[in-house]
Amino acid sequence: MLATYRLRSDAGSIGERARALAVEQSIEMPLDAVRDARVRAEVVGEVRSIEPATAQPGCFDVTLALAAETVGDEPGQLLNMLFGNCSLQPDVELLDLELPEPMLRNLPGPRFGVAGWRAALGAGAAARALSCSALKPQGLPADALAALAYALARAGIDVVKDDHGLADQPAAPFAQRVPAVQRAIERANREKAAGDGPLAGHRSVYAPSLSGGPKRLAAQLRIVRDEGVGAALVCPMVIGIPGFVELVRAEAGVPLLAHPALAGHARIGEPLLLGKLFRLFGADATIFPNWGGRFSYPREVCLAIADSAREPLGKHLPILPVPAGGMSVARVPEMLDDFGPDTMLLIGGNLLAAGDAMPARATEFAARVAHAFQTQAS
Amino acid sequence: MLATYRLRSDAGSIGERARALAVEQSIEMPLDAVRDARVRAEVVGEVRSIEPATAQPGCFDVTLALAAETVGDEPGQLLNMLFGNCSLQPDVELLDLELPEPMLRNLPGPRFGVAGWRAALGAGAAARALSCSALKPQGLPADALAALAYALARAGIDVVKDDHGLADQPAAPFAQRVPAVQRAIERANREKAAGDGPLAGHRSVYAPSLSGGPKRLAAQLRIVRDEGVGAALVCPMVIGIPGFVELVRAEAGVPLLAHPALAGHARIGEPLLLGKLFRLFGADATIFPNWGGRFSYPREVCLAIADSAREPLGKHLPILPVPAGGMSVARVPEMLDDFGPDTMLLIGGNLLAAGDAMPARATEFAARVAHAFQTQAS
Repeated sequence: MLATYRLRSDAGSIGERARALAVEQSIEMPLDAVRDARVRAEVVGEVRSIEPATAQPGCFDVTLALAAETVGDEPGQLLNMLFGNCSLQPDVELLDLELPEPMLRNLPGPRFGVAGWRAALGAGAAARALSCSALKPQGLPADALAALAYALARAGIDVVKDDHGLADQPAAPFAQRVPAVQRAIERANREKAAGDGPLAGHRSVYAPSLSGGPKRLAAQLRIVRDEGVGAALVCPMVIGIPGFVELVRAEAGVPLLAHPALAGHARIGEPLLLGKLFRLFGADATIFPNWGGRFSYPREVCLAIADSAREPLGKHLPILPVPAGGMSVARVPEMLDDFGPDTMLLIGGNLLAAGDAMPARATEFAARVAHAFQTQAS
Repeated sequence: MLATYRLRSDAGSIGERARALAVEQSIEMPLDAVRDARVRAEVVGEVRSIEPATAQPGCFDVTLALAAETVGDEPGQLLNMLFGNCSLQPDVELLDLELPEPMLRNLPGPRFGVAGWRAALGAGAAARALSCSALKPQGLPADALAALAYALARAGIDVVKDDHGLADQPAAPFAQRVPAVQRAIERANREKAAGDGPLAGHRSVYAPSLSGGPKRLAAQLRIVRDEGVGAALVCPMVIGIPGFVELVRAEAGVPLLAHPALAGHARIGEPLLLGKLFRLFGADATIFPNWGGRFSYPREVCLAIADSAREPLGKHLPILPVPAGGMSVARVPEMLDDFGPDTMLLIGGNLLAAGDAMPARATEFAARVAHAFQTQAS
């Protein structure tokens, strides 16, 4: 596999620094002390190229060839070999990764992808962008969150997700919250099915927040199945990539919305981590902080995340980019221009900030998202 | 709980920035839109203090009071509420954490701690520092790693650990490697038990590297139990904190050596993450890159990690700091001066770099570590 790192270094030292990184991320011992000929030939990392980083003076982009056999078949070990030790070295960022076809094929990848979200949402969601909002604040009891979910679903929001801060806290334990919210969503869906007007037949899907260790996750997944919940939210870096892949991706049976919590600290390029890697690990949609909100990603990084989510990647399905993080209804047209129809827009606080006018603002948000590309097509 | 963050900000903006952080790490929505009086009073984060960071001009240290109820009883959720969203904001570092007594009590903490390591190693390891070395390079077959383990154990190394890059790869699958290495360690121990000289009765313990999702971890833990393995190595940030706590810490039944892979990013203070938090999550020893090696932590950070590992912390046992990362036998006296007897020194590559003289250098390393504090005491 080819891993590209950005290293801060002067030109005179970069060759040696790059070779040291190749050793650190493969055999992690002095090269002279490796006596096994096969290990020297096939396991030690190799420097393939060193280029000055034009965008960042004083840095070089170094591509290493790392042996696939150091990873085996486990996604956590992939992260370990890509960025385990060098995460401790402040002069290194991980920028990009090219996997050989067998490794690419063996990674789980999304089960549902863009088309899976549309299928979960029904015929009305074909070939258009999707809307998403969040149940918050945490601290509310389950019935209050259910009431909010009902209002959002009645307004035509496609995906109603838990706030990523909702876990299994006493104020609204998972086993109470999820059935209550799911019933509220179903009631709204029944009413929309029986009604007419622009939302006739619109179907909303609930994505509760999964969290915790394997036993707790297994119990939560049972509730998701038993209650007929249609999607799930998960923070891969909080629960850990191995658990995300082996338990959540393998057993949830519904489209997964990945949240970037705890993912921003790692000095791994956002298009690689939130786009390509989360997709390869099994996310069906990936939330990221869009530019101009409460976070600081520049616009080109956001567009690159969206590209990573949707571009061809071996056998793997494209997934939905989900720009978020302090977005407003006023920015919907601009975001749809940026990200196109294979996108889910997530607005939370800006809807709730409308107070009594929340249902109207949510309706406006859902309608703008739903009609943008339908209008263009007609 | 009181969480202290370092924020890059000018003096005129820091008040507003601190309040925004308190909202981001609690309810994550506009404060005006929170209608529930209980949530406003009890769940929203509060700014408790703002002080200029004397060590870092242009920064402020901000202490927030965050509601314990937002965490509930799950360690992954603790990380989520401390640093989930703000990990995505480059102007924030997490520096410190004070937990109220009930939260502190409910975190699992180490099962074995310093005394547990000594007990696992036998009477000869009382009241002295411990030595540790690593099996590497990865890519070697199981029998070659077992031969290396035998040599290290015969040299008197206390803890022989897998390289953290060893997982479950084809070259030396866990189910082959661990029984082979454990038998080699036992053979060395039997020979030392039957012999005389300075190593008479010395006992070495093997710490294989656990990795993967819950099913794979469970299978590995069965092998550890069935083979009578005495310790284990694990990368908490690679497997994920919830799995580390709920599966490894709960079920391993042996002292756990935490490895910092994927934990270094300089945005959560190392003494907090590698010292206090890994200890609270259940590590019995914590590896960190000592100053002057291949990594760049300054000496005072290394000493602070050691303090966090051993200082009083509610009901929780002290654990061993394990300075590592390019250390040499020549530095043993200085490291023992720095870290004292409740320490495990880890040297890997420097032993292997001796080539044919490796057994002699390992013997010198083990003896220096074993005798330092015994000599002082006699």
